[in-house]
Amino acid sequence: MGILLKNVLAVLPEGEKDVVKETDIYIEGDKITGIGTEPESFSPDKVIDGKDRLAIPGLINCHTHSYMSFMRNVADDLSFMDWLFGTIDPIEQQMTDEDTYWGACLAIIEMMKSGTTCFNDMQMNIHQTTRAVKESGMRAVVCRGLIGSGNDEAGQIRLKQAYEERDAAKDCDRLTFMLGPHAPYTCDDAFMRIVSEEAKKNHMGIHVHLSESESEIEQIKEKYGCSPIEMADKNGLFDVPAIAAHCVQITERDMDILQAKNVSVVTNPASNMKLGNGFAPVPAMLEKGINVCLGTDGAASNNSLNLFHELSLLTLIHKGVKKTPQCISAAEGFRIATINGAKALGLSEVTGSLEIGKKADIAILNLNTPSLTPRNNLLAGLSYSANGSEVETVIIDGKITMEGRKVLTLDEDLVYKKVNEIIVRMGLDKKEY
Amino acid sequence: MGILLKNVLAVLPEGEKDVVKETDIYIEGDKITGIGTEPESFSPDKVIDGKDRLAIPGLINCHTHSYMSFMRNVADDLSFMDWLFGTIDPIEQQMTDEDTYWGACLAIIEMMKSGTTCFNDMQMNIHQTTRAVKESGMRAVVCRGLIGSGNDEAGQIRLKQAYEERDAAKDCDRLTFMLGPHAPYTCDDAFMRIVSEEAKKNHMGIHVHLSESESEIEQIKEKYGCSPIEMADKNGLFDVPAIAAHCVQITERDMDILQAKNVSVVTNPASNMKLGNGFAPVPAMLEKGINVCLGTDGAASNNSLNLFHELSLLTLIHKGVKKTPQCISAAEGFRIATINGAKALGLSEVTGSLEIGKKADIAILNLNTPSLTPRNNLLAGLSYSANGSEVETVIIDGKITMEGRKVLTLDEDLVYKKVNEIIVRMGLDKKEY
Repeated sequence: MGILLKNVLAVLPEGEKDVVKETDIYIEGDKITGIGTEPESFSPDKVIDGKDRLAIPGLINCHTHSYMSFMRNVADDLSFMDWLFGTIDPIEQQMTDEDTYWGACLAIIEMMKSGTTCFNDMQMNIHQTTRAVKESGMRAVVCRGLIGSGNDEAGQIRLKQAYEERDAAKDCDRLTFMLGPHAPYTCDDAFMRIVSEEAKKNHMGIHVHLSESESEIEQIKEKYGCSPIEMADKNGLFDVPAIAAHCVQITERDMDILQAKNVSVVTNPASNMKLGNGFAPVPAMLEKGINVCLGTDGAASNNSLNLFHELSLLTLIHKGVKKTPQCISAAEGFRIATINGAKALGLSEVTGSLEIGKKADIAILNLNTPSLTPRNNLLAGLSYSANGSEVETVIIDGKITMEGRKVLTLDEDLVYKKVNEIIVRMGLDKKEY
Repeated sequence: MGILLKNVLAVLPEGEKDVVKETDIYIEGDKITGIGTEPESFSPDKVIDGKDRLAIPGLINCHTHSYMSFMRNVADDLSFMDWLFGTIDPIEQQMTDEDTYWGACLAIIEMMKSGTTCFNDMQMNIHQTTRAVKESGMRAVVCRGLIGSGNDEAGQIRLKQAYEERDAAKDCDRLTFMLGPHAPYTCDDAFMRIVSEEAKKNHMGIHVHLSESESEIEQIKEKYGCSPIEMADKNGLFDVPAIAAHCVQITERDMDILQAKNVSVVTNPASNMKLGNGFAPVPAMLEKGINVCLGTDGAASNNSLNLFHELSLLTLIHKGVKKTPQCISAAEGFRIATINGAKALGLSEVTGSLEIGKKADIAILNLNTPSLTPRNNLLAGLSYSANGSEVETVIIDGKITMEGRKVLTLDEDLVYKKVNEIIVRMGLDKKEY
């Protein structure tokens, strides 16, 4: 039993770069067991014809808040602190567990339909992302967003919830967990220390927002006399495997800390532009040897969870900012959106590239599309012209979760209906433009 | 006879802004003859159910080189002058009329499939864009790229070709023509004067590249002691309706000239970033009251002709550059991609909005898609999260040219095959990445 992807062009790793080759890919159970050479006693129960198709490792969205997808378009054109505390927070106060479940389902549908097979989620209502992940067949790393001050009750409750969620998902090996201290302006230094001790004790990674807005920099400078990255470092957040979202407003010294402590940085270009935070110094971070990966952030600040869109932004905007067309090539961008993400999430042995022994997390694109014609340099096509809709079939953990652009694991129309109902119930269906 | 678009949400103009309303749209012949109210003796031979659908005016791509689509991915990550003179020019020397025809077909398919119904083309092989436009049912404004020096033979031949092309297309009222002096660094001042006199005499508009790269600014400064925009102005280019592509490297004084002379500016964000030219000062131009419209440029420098992608860039990048989230709203961006384009092309009575009396140029999007869910602010959805693949049906000049995402007027698979063959014949099918 297994799946054979026959005569397909595939993006395959070759040392530190990717090559595009025609090959056969053999899948048994949840894993890739052969590339080019048929494994012993392989007998496929499904053969996918690879003619005019391109197989790529599923993209990895390293920073999002899937539940927020029901909040798409509710808070546009606001500065960061107004957006978060003025608009998003009041909505979060009235959302139910069911709302966040449907939000997560919408996010997963959008990601799957644009070739993402794994995402890193910071969420607010426990058991909802994990519920949607289990049902949809997605792969995810989940953390409960932690907000707290010293040993206060709120922070302790959230920590407890984080463990509850992890323990309740032990039956699904597509799920792993991190601890998620939200940010230096919502967690004080004492709470940060508690969280980093917990992470160490429990062998968990850390997922945190750092140095996103200028006002964050000012606040932290005033309160602690240092940068958010220095604050996080002092409080032990980087003593475990850590993934820092944003890092837009950072100094040379901040970058040295991130590099020395092996912190992975998730860049979120659309969200950073849309909230007026600017452009993260990604080329400088890459030059330092920092592992940079790619994220969409939530749909309330992007407003898209399509990682192909984000990849095109990543490979375009820094050429504009630095006035250097060589800045972040298509090939480099593609690795940032795949294998670098797997490394950041501690999943480099599991996903992020098409290799024997890794889980079969694969997106198959239709090459008979305008954006991928001609077939002269498909990595350029993926980064600069693909829009995500070329993805036709998605395989995650060896299971086909989308075929002919139809998601097989969730009821798409039901999800759209439920999300539209939430918006009406909350009075967020704007009539004026 | 006619088409009835029944119970559809539609983006309709209301004064200087757009509103989204549920309505019926009546099409007779090539025109919209009713919105909301059925015209007398209307009898549709086709009814399109508008349930879960959004009708928008077709997008207008105000600057492209459609033939270049066969050159997608051939010249990535090069600075502007190396790109143009080192890579593109040598390919143009060996391309045939047929090559440019298939390139134009590919461009039209990509544009139609992402909701563009009208484009402004500067091309190099006469009768090929017009041939593809006639067959595909697209609307286009075409100019032959003019390069010349004084009264030299090359310039005169190209001018003659421009008229030949215009005269040969008199039978197709979806085509109009401009004169296209390429740029101040490929046309000298004497030739620019000849072209502007010709435009005046023949009541034609001008389509020109201006102030794209820093090296252009230096070259023109050295040769003429002024900016490219001043050079164009001095030589009469702005004495007829003019559309200037790029305008990235411009001064306050340049902007005042553009505003005073009613020049429309086409901004091409992806191309400007990709070639390392930077960001055009679009917010400042809008503040001056300049009519700004949107273009993709050619697929050799973008590399996408998807105007939804360009619209998302337009509404995101300036928020990043200015660190101001209020900069170019979704609603403003949508008008830049539609009605402003129609104005720039002298087609504001013809297309660019859904209004009675205008031609029926309409894209119909499927709202049961993740990017357009929830339906709370559809203008935000169009600018920030749509990727173009939501477009299901396209009507141009009252004819259905795409239905169920299948282009009805061109053979898509044949076009992909032909373009792939050109690339192999020219030895441009890159194997190494």
